[in-house]
Amino acid sequence: MATAQTAHLSDDDLATLDRYWRAANYLAVGQIYLLANPLPAEPLSVEHIKPRLLGHWGTTPGLNLIYAHLNRVIRARDLDAIHVTGPGHGGPATLACCWLDGSYSDVYPDVSRDAEGMTRLFRQFSFPGGVPSHVAPETPGSIHEGGELGYALSHAYGAAFDNPGLVVAAIVGDGEAETGPLATGWHGNKFLDPVHDGAVLPILHLNGYKIANPAVLSRLPHEELDQLLRGYGHEPVFVEGDDPATVHHAMAAALDHCLDRIAGHQRAAREDGVSGRPRWPMIVLRTPKGWTGPATVDGKPVEGTWRAHQVPLSGLRESPGHLRQLEEWMRSYRPEELFDEQGRPLPEVLAQVPAGDRRLGSNPHTNGGRLLRSLPVPAIRDYAVKVPEPGATLHEPTRILGGLLRDLMRRTEKSRDFRLFGPDETASNRLQDVYDATGKGWQDEILSTDEHLARDGRVLEMLSEHNCQGWLEGYLLTGRHGLFSSYEAFIHIVTSMANQHAKWLKVSRELPWRMPLSSLNYLLTSHVWRQDHNGFSHQDPGFIDHMVNKDPQTIRVYLPPDANTLLAVAGKTLDSRDLINIVAAGKQPCFDWLSLDDAVNHVERGVSVWDWAGSDTGREPDVVLAAAGDVPTQEVMAAASLLRAHLPDLAVRVVNVVDLMRLLPHTEHPSGLNDHGFDAVFTADKPVIFAYHGYPWLIHRLTYRRNGHANIHVRGYKEQGTTTTPFDMVVLNDMDRYRLVMDVIDRVPGLALRAIGVRQLMKDKRNEHRSYIREHGQDMPEIREWTWA
Amino acid sequence: MATAQTAHLSDDDLATLDRYWRAANYLAVGQIYLLANPLPAEPLSVEHIKPRLLGHWGTTPGLNLIYAHLNRVIRARDLDAIHVTGPGHGGPATLACCWLDGSYSDVYPDVSRDAEGMTRLFRQFSFPGGVPSHVAPETPGSIHEGGELGYALSHAYGAAFDNPGLVVAAIVGDGEAETGPLATGWHGNKFLDPVHDGAVLPILHLNGYKIANPAVLSRLPHEELDQLLRGYGHEPVFVEGDDPATVHHAMAAALDHCLDRIAGHQRAAREDGVSGRPRWPMIVLRTPKGWTGPATVDGKPVEGTWRAHQVPLSGLRESPGHLRQLEEWMRSYRPEELFDEQGRPLPEVLAQVPAGDRRLGSNPHTNGGRLLRSLPVPAIRDYAVKVPEPGATLHEPTRILGGLLRDLMRRTEKSRDFRLFGPDETASNRLQDVYDATGKGWQDEILSTDEHLARDGRVLEMLSEHNCQGWLEGYLLTGRHGLFSSYEAFIHIVTSMANQHAKWLKVSRELPWRMPLSSLNYLLTSHVWRQDHNGFSHQDPGFIDHMVNKDPQTIRVYLPPDANTLLAVAGKTLDSRDLINIVAAGKQPCFDWLSLDDAVNHVERGVSVWDWAGSDTGREPDVVLAAAGDVPTQEVMAAASLLRAHLPDLAVRVVNVVDLMRLLPHTEHPSGLNDHGFDAVFTADKPVIFAYHGYPWLIHRLTYRRNGHANIHVRGYKEQGTTTTPFDMVVLNDMDRYRLVMDVIDRVPGLALRAIGVRQLMKDKRNEHRSYIREHGQDMPEIREWTWA
Repeated sequence: MATAQTAHLSDDDLATLDRYWRAANYLAVGQIYLLANPLPAEPLSVEHIKPRLLGHWGTTPGLNLIYAHLNRVIRARDLDAIHVTGPGHGGPATLACCWLDGSYSDVYPDVSRDAEGMTRLFRQFSFPGGVPSHVAPETPGSIHEGGELGYALSHAYGAAFDNPGLVVAAIVGDGEAETGPLATGWHGNKFLDPVHDGAVLPILHLNGYKIANPAVLSRLPHEELDQLLRGYGHEPVFVEGDDPATVHHAMAAALDHCLDRIAGHQRAAREDGVSGRPRWPMIVLRTPKGWTGPATVDGKPVEGTWRAHQVPLSGLRESPGHLRQLEEWMRSYRPEELFDEQGRPLPEVLAQVPAGDRRLGSNPHTNGGRLLRSLPVPAIRDYAVKVPEPGATLHEPTRILGGLLRDLMRRTEKSRDFRLFGPDETASNRLQDVYDATGKGWQDEILSTDEHLARDGRVLEMLSEHNCQGWLEGYLLTGRHGLFSSYEAFIHIVTSMANQHAKWLKVSRELPWRMPLSSLNYLLTSHVWRQDHNGFSHQDPGFIDHMVNKDPQTIRVYLPPDANTLLAVAGKTLDSRDLINIVAAGKQPCFDWLSLDDAVNHVERGVSVWDWAGSDTGREPDVVLAAAGDVPTQEVMAAASLLRAHLPDLAVRVVNVVDLMRLLPHTEHPSGLNDHGFDAVFTADKPVIFAYHGYPWLIHRLTYRRNGHANIHVRGYKEQGTTTTPFDMVVLNDMDRYRLVMDVIDRVPGLALRAIGVRQLMKDKRNEHRSYIREHGQDMPEIREWTWA
Repeated sequence: MATAQTAHLSDDDLATLDRYWRAANYLAVGQIYLLANPLPAEPLSVEHIKPRLLGHWGTTPGLNLIYAHLNRVIRARDLDAIHVTGPGHGGPATLACCWLDGSYSDVYPDVSRDAEGMTRLFRQFSFPGGVPSHVAPETPGSIHEGGELGYALSHAYGAAFDNPGLVVAAIVGDGEAETGPLATGWHGNKFLDPVHDGAVLPILHLNGYKIANPAVLSRLPHEELDQLLRGYGHEPVFVEGDDPATVHHAMAAALDHCLDRIAGHQRAAREDGVSGRPRWPMIVLRTPKGWTGPATVDGKPVEGTWRAHQVPLSGLRESPGHLRQLEEWMRSYRPEELFDEQGRPLPEVLAQVPAGDRRLGSNPHTNGGRLLRSLPVPAIRDYAVKVPEPGATLHEPTRILGGLLRDLMRRTEKSRDFRLFGPDETASNRLQDVYDATGKGWQDEILSTDEHLARDGRVLEMLSEHNCQGWLEGYLLTGRHGLFSSYEAFIHIVTSMANQHAKWLKVSRELPWRMPLSSLNYLLTSHVWRQDHNGFSHQDPGFIDHMVNKDPQTIRVYLPPDANTLLAVAGKTLDSRDLINIVAAGKQPCFDWLSLDDAVNHVERGVSVWDWAGSDTGREPDVVLAAAGDVPTQEVMAAASLLRAHLPDLAVRVVNVVDLMRLLPHTEHPSGLNDHGFDAVFTADKPVIFAYHGYPWLIHRLTYRRNGHANIHVRGYKEQGTTTTPFDMVVLNDMDRYRLVMDVIDRVPGLALRAIGVRQLMKDKRNEHRSYIREHGQDMPEIREWTWA
């Protein structure tokens, strides 16, 4: 379908749309420039102008146009629709529109829909103590910041999953369209079930330029762009022009066409049982950057060029000409036709604005906590492994968790508000029991050799961590629950997305009208210590380091040492609120250390002394052996048993850390131990040999304020690795049992001389290991067959 | 063009290709399974089998096929070609092929091209002390690890830029094709100049499955896939089948066709002056996953399914049937036709293998240090700003650097071995002087409103940090130089790519045959403190934290406090080798503190006492005020001047840190200070108030072993921010001058009571600031107009 050239709207509708659009544009300009005199009631003077001019005009008129037209179809069709605005730096547009529809004043009553409120709206924008220049958590109707760019489509698909009545208009800027995450975000349509999911309507808004360059997609020959979008599985409708009336007709026709097609596809799938992926419609809206703004400034073209990106007219204090040009620009929208003398939008401006929760600024899906139901997590007891004695049996922790997730999938079969996301590793990460309850969502052809694919599957696997993360974020932000399981190393691919989500949660928590969301849960498995197949490129435990830089109110890190503890962590985190829970747990057979009751207590305490494993009962310890993580726990336990055998008099305390944030002072983190609690476990003056899952210096960064910090000696991953045996990995990084025993001997005062033979024995063992693996290609029998019990 | 059905090859050529392919497949299987008996000379028994079976078979036969066919065309056309193998987990393929062409034995003579070497080749694969299972730095002929997936195309384009005679075959796996970076990697063709750059030949290798799922692109209807690839700007040639002879003919025809097209496009651009972007050819190779491997195992289909992904036959010790099946599989390649009795490949296997540096395993572009020329960095003195007295003048540091980069662009105009990469921010980051020397590379239409676009421009701007990073990596790995300038917050988008490059450099350094490369240089600007326009989403200084987890031999971090120091850092880093240099520097006007000589000395020392700024001359300091970063330096200097005014008796030492790694002990980092040097600057016992550019706890993580660590009090960014004034940002994060003075008063013993009035004054100033900005929207005049001098 080409650009509609014919009249699609009645004259009245056209006039209303255009009035609304002019009003929104006017309000956007006002936000960028004005401190006072909003209507403007008197001629603009420098006193009315903000001292610092900040904001992005270029994308704003296009966003306002889309908002206006979405209003029309929502009202005409009683549509349940939200918008995800990729060019979120166009904050003035979204703020203008939700002020116009009254959503803004609903949550910020002092910014009322009149001249006083308009003054506040203008002044607060990008102003100290005011609101950010981008669409942000502070913006009603938004689930998407848009500052970083790249995630509009994945957020939109996440919002649409399991919301069969919802239409998500996903506005993609042509700058954003160049990013990798957005480029693969298009493929979300291969995972969208027309029966159980809602619809995503992508609106690619081409205005030709990024900050200073043409955008790639905007300069493609028309045929190539058309092929690209068809190749992405869409049926594109092109709306192009710079004459407002023409564009209004074309945009209205395009929206009606697309919504009819969407309804048709949904009807075919839901009522006629048509299977397979439809070619969903989409819109390409090509309008000038900074449309309706100054055509030229100081003789240089602005409208339609990259110069319109931010503030088209500046230096207003120095240049009376610019000030006059601003006034002409604002008056070109004919504010007197849009607002009454009290600054209230006239009824004819608002005639096509929807009411109540149908307003884009008020749709409850965009404040997901309003819709969130408690997650029916099954009793973890039903999945617990029996632990007759510690360290005698082995289980794959993630496989045990898989049983719980299977039943959670069953319990949410009707509510469809829980999903599992991952880049093709759910089974490889041993969670495959979930496939007894649901399939992997897939809309293309299904072959007889495929397993577990299903149109309505609630496991989503795509080899794009960006999509997995973005889908889950969109799903959570619209009031549902989920879990992302990933190879530990490759979760770094979404480091920056996790940043942005943490920032969103931090700001949202401070807004009384934003309701709490379900937490973002990461299961990091196939972790650094067990990359037997893959080696060095797959070894990176640094995501934890990265995330603990974020707001402490938001971040939790768990390192369960065994299967039952992983269950207990799942019980604590799956239905939590407003957090980012990072759980690192192995998929390989791992010793069971704790009964379920002990595991639950361990998780509640976060840090526990394992009396049964130590030799310090009833006495001061000579040394503390601490572990955080499953592999470190195993090495610490093996070290403890070596010490018991070789140095039976030594009082060894064994400590296990499952909640890493406990190590921080309580003044720094809500989970932090106070000094008294910390010293009670780690002592204030004894050597602590700490085996940690990740980079060792993180433990120092968390504990540097502790009394006994100078005595803490940490072993962990120090960027040494390759394709080798599991035990060789710990040896390469000096975290093996023998090395830990040597550390104890080196650090306990007075022990060095007494234990000189034991130390030499440990050294010999390490050498023996090295020759053994080079000869046999696997670990020595005494390592492979070691048990604690 | 559809699949070629007709004979393209002579019978001899077909036979040679097929023999080579069988040999490579045989050698790949041998690597996965065998410890001994490589030919096999005797029937396979469990003693010949590795104890741990590791490796990825699924993609291997396809990679071998491509390698075989590339050999043919390289030889036939005397082509200068390299391969970038996205499915780098198919290590057995690449290792087999470079063993066959002799490149492997050239660099690893003990792995000779005979039975003894073949045994070593097999045994070492994924074996302790051996080689990784993936294509890795250890693999001759590779510039691409392929473990993380996503970067094959961007690396390929990076290699092709400014290498007009080179063809880069970029093999994209269908799993990888789902990633975001790869999805936008296709658009590299919009930036490839047919005149000055070489060619990239993408080969999309569809084998249907990822680990456990069908791949998105492989299941697209043919028409949709064709549209997608055309939309990406390519002319796809489809090679599909499972009959080897048919596929050989079709693949040979496709390669000849594509290379003819490439040569034609290059001729048109270079000789006929045809401008504009050609539609470059590409190949879609669709063959079964695990092709020629076991069709079924235990009654389940394997060949052609996801079950062929890793090791198709396992449990060989327990299952004699599997062992027999393995032997049948290996013998199906008829090794007796491929190797002589000494295990040497027969001449008829190697008849189409190129010689010398034309071999894919030996092409010097893949060991870029062999081609690297020294970078003619201009004398930095010529760009230095005059500093009559410290803190009296202002310059934008990145603008000053821009002058140097301009002339560096000029000096490399002929050699074309330096480029600047960035996501549309070169001018916004004030480096625009480079446009006097070169343009921004752009191959699509150029309009009259565009600025600085040029077909042969050596600045590459695309709003994809992934492409910028991947291009630069590919450019460096093939022996050239470059700089990536980015918004500080959004460099996190490529955190995981930087990880992988750091790992590549670490391993390469340990390989004597890999020659040193030019360093990867990051200029992080538009940094955390100056997001006046953009606010919280644009504030994240954590990339530094992330990178200092990597190998210390590789990582350097510089925080120049002013323009001359940025020049000095540029002088030190731009032509350095095998490092990742992270330079964080502002683009906003910044006080000049140091003359060029002082700046050079400062960078050499890394940490300096600024005597002229302190009040401790000739006496023990009461307190040390330290800064790292431009904004922290300004606040520390302002605090020092407040202290001088209000507490003139106090002996204040002012310290500036430009080389952050100096803070680490010399035992931990090659740049680290020893304790004596550290104490000489920071003292071992005086309070240190440290204002740091990023997250404050990083300073603790770096200094926790220092004698005076308990006295170090750090201020920095603690995740507080929004769209606000520059000074408000430092107040929000407690790093402002007033707060620093209060910190001094609180920490210098005995000062609290004496300075109670000064402390109250500082507190009042902070309050005054808060009300002022809320009223006026900008910082107080005393902040805006402050100068040191």
